[in-house]
Amino acid sequence: MKRTDFTNCSCAMQRSMGILGTRWKPVIVYKLADRKIRFGQLAVMIEGISRKVLTSSLKELEEDGIVMREEFKEIPPRVEYSLTAKGKALIPIMCQLVKWNEEFHEQTDTLQPL
Amino acid sequence: MKRTDFTNCSCAMQRSMGILGTRWKPVIVYKLADRKIRFGQLAVMIEGISRKVLTSSLKELEEDGIVMREEFKEIPPRVEYSLTAKGKALIPIMCQLVKWNEEFHEQTDTLQPL
Repeated sequence: MKRTDFTNCSCAMQRSMGILGTRWKPVIVYKLADRKIRFGQLAVMIEGISRKVLTSSLKELEEDGIVMREEFKEIPPRVEYSLTAKGKALIPIMCQLVKWNEEFHEQTDTLQPL
Repeated sequence: MKRTDFTNCSCAMQRSMGILGTRWKPVIVYKLADRKIRFGQLAVMIEGISRKVLTSSLKELEEDGIVMREEFKEIPPRVEYSLTAKGKALIPIMCQLVKWNEEFHEQTDTLQPL
């Protein structure tokens, strides 16, 4: 099933996953939060992301109305990313995911072999 | 970057994505909610999921302490899945994602060509 097939699902949870359901997109949204960030800065802020994956994720998030891309015609050209209202509405949810992980992270460590 | 690499990240958001960051896993968690469900029922409840992807997703969710698998030695054998406490703690967050989608879904429809 393609990303766009998810966006047309009758289930709102599946539609959300059509927009966010990758390992990287929620991390990108969380890092952007209420700031404008340049591509290069984002690439440094997110542990282990490749420039290729960051580029394609930002492009899809822009298509889905989550991220706004602003290009400034300077020399050298500057491109900044920020969240739209739809994207900003995700921040409290992302913060809860962080809380959830912090609460249960240690617990899982003790359950699983290293 | 592999799933297990995410689980060892210093960023709690990335750790969460090591556990949940696919299109299907949050949908599986949301469908399980507070019920015990058989594999075959889950496969029917989730639009478009293949049995192969459902099997591997459930296995990983079990490894990460989100899902509990119970096998009943009946004829034919019965296997039921349910959420652990760690998995149940995700339900309010998943419900907010659904609300978020319902709120913004129509808005995106008008922004994007069909």
